[in-house]
Amino acid sequence: MKAAKIYGKRDIRVEEVAIPELSKGMVVVKVEFAGICGSDLHEYSEGPFSIRTHSVMGHEFSGIVTEIGEGVTTVKAGDRVAVEPIIACGQCINCKKGYVNLCKARQGYGYTESGGFAQYAVVKQENVFKLPDEMSLELGALVEPTAVAVHAVRESQLKLGDTAAIYGAGPIGLLLLQSVKAAGASMIFVVEVSEERRQKALELGATFVLNPLECNIKTFIHSKTNGGVNVAFDVAGVQETFLNGVTTVQSGGEYKIVSLWENPVTFQPNAIVTAEISVSGSYAYRNLFPEVIRLLACGIIDGNAIITSVIPLDRIVEEGFEVLMKDHNQCKILVEMDI
Amino acid sequence: MKAAKIYGKRDIRVEEVAIPELSKGMVVVKVEFAGICGSDLHEYSEGPFSIRTHSVMGHEFSGIVTEIGEGVTTVKAGDRVAVEPIIACGQCINCKKGYVNLCKARQGYGYTESGGFAQYAVVKQENVFKLPDEMSLELGALVEPTAVAVHAVRESQLKLGDTAAIYGAGPIGLLLLQSVKAAGASMIFVVEVSEERRQKALELGATFVLNPLECNIKTFIHSKTNGGVNVAFDVAGVQETFLNGVTTVQSGGEYKIVSLWENPVTFQPNAIVTAEISVSGSYAYRNLFPEVIRLLACGIIDGNAIITSVIPLDRIVEEGFEVLMKDHNQCKILVEMDI
Repeated sequence: MKAAKIYGKRDIRVEEVAIPELSKGMVVVKVEFAGICGSDLHEYSEGPFSIRTHSVMGHEFSGIVTEIGEGVTTVKAGDRVAVEPIIACGQCINCKKGYVNLCKARQGYGYTESGGFAQYAVVKQENVFKLPDEMSLELGALVEPTAVAVHAVRESQLKLGDTAAIYGAGPIGLLLLQSVKAAGASMIFVVEVSEERRQKALELGATFVLNPLECNIKTFIHSKTNGGVNVAFDVAGVQETFLNGVTTVQSGGEYKIVSLWENPVTFQPNAIVTAEISVSGSYAYRNLFPEVIRLLACGIIDGNAIITSVIPLDRIVEEGFEVLMKDHNQCKILVEMDI
Repeated sequence: MKAAKIYGKRDIRVEEVAIPELSKGMVVVKVEFAGICGSDLHEYSEGPFSIRTHSVMGHEFSGIVTEIGEGVTTVKAGDRVAVEPIIACGQCINCKKGYVNLCKARQGYGYTESGGFAQYAVVKQENVFKLPDEMSLELGALVEPTAVAVHAVRESQLKLGDTAAIYGAGPIGLLLLQSVKAAGASMIFVVEVSEERRQKALELGATFVLNPLECNIKTFIHSKTNGGVNVAFDVAGVQETFLNGVTTVQSGGEYKIVSLWENPVTFQPNAIVTAEISVSGSYAYRNLFPEVIRLLACGIIDGNAIITSVIPLDRIVEEGFEVLMKDHNQCKILVEMDI
């Protein structure tokens, strides 16, 4: 089969490789669509870090089951599915407590195991989730990133009617925007330097879109909210968003960090103490694919709105990774295996 | 009356001043005992910051009601009371939500209004709380700092059976130690550079006392806890405790900051994200004096264990502030007005 493997920094190659072996409890999925994630881009531009070198990338994907291994009972050939990439050990203290996303021996398709930028993926039966008939396979490839956003909102303090700020309007930021809106936020600030992304955020329901290079974010948000938002979400992960994050939530509120950080930050912890705010992390998702499939299938979250192009696997570097590095009009690029 | 006023950095003077006027809804308290707080010490050594210059200090105090103003119904002359120093406006958004400790127009006895380092204090009736007969007036002066510790524990994730770490074993640290123990913590690490304070922590029920200059705190705590403590409390407020704090709580756990900080900290937020921990602040207390009075009266928290000396008001600088600045054998020093 054809597959895209990472060899090193800015070195991804589409090659002919063997289809992984089908063993007991596993399922062969003929991949249809696979999304390029911001973390994939980071692995390409600066890494690789978490992805094993020479490994097939891609952890956001959908497809059709073509073959099932011994003992597989939950799906059959012909089923349309989304694949959850996380493989938790089930044995560590975090797994035992249900924090499978924080598994201390975590593996993953597209990280340590062959992933979805390939014509076929072979995955455990517990990692495949059937899609309803009315849901497209394109949306199936969006279940994974949408789960990141939905998990962050579910684990946050956000309640119906609350105010929220979102720092960064890339794919996860725009999915977060839709998620907080779906959860009933009554005023949403999106802070983003790119004009194109601010425009997209406005179309997707942001109450205010703010350019941090032109606007004092703290002053503006406080002027509209009587003391700050209930919850601020960070999907940018830089010094400036951290400082804005902790100072734009109201007393007792929450600054929820979803992004991973390249650099340390410097800040005055009194901002946390004297307002009794909480700074917390949200990492991936856990046990959430069925919920997210429902949200996307019925359009509560509009996945199609963030898909900006569909490209063939052969062009994944030129039309995928390289384009994402410079073009902020792009949001989610899907790789289609059959074209 | 005699009272101790702050004039500037390292300039506290005991002088003859007028007793504040008794007005409607107010109560005259003949002060018996008043504790010197770490924040008072900070105001003396580096400030004043929050305390109005030329104002009578002291916000941890007890005494006997000698006179009541018009409309006072909750106490009468002769009642033994503890005084809560916080005066909230009742009008701001935080007050309306019940976060009176985060009042945006907060005033306070011993800060902006005449406080307890004086023979008399005149305070609002809602700020005085009767002590049970069996509770000493010395313990009455400890209600305020104990409330700081009890609030931090009540607002934390800590549950019966959990593990906890406490960074810093001054008065608040030792009250926190007793509070987490009283709340059912089953293993408590106290991290403190002073040998004398570690010894005190051991006497008060710490499972392990650790010197951060001689021990790798993270390695030690992880070796004893299978992934870190449930909750770490910071009452030291320096770069090193912040880094230890975020790395010694387990996945999903909480690093609760009680201290105020002189300097910014630098850290890598991925520590928060990838373990989904929460870094939160606890500031003063709210609506908690009755609970704390019960905890001290019945000895669940042993206030006497942290009182290391009782000094006369005339000697508040020499035997109080100056001694606390250098002698780590000292914990809580009470000023007694009648001697």
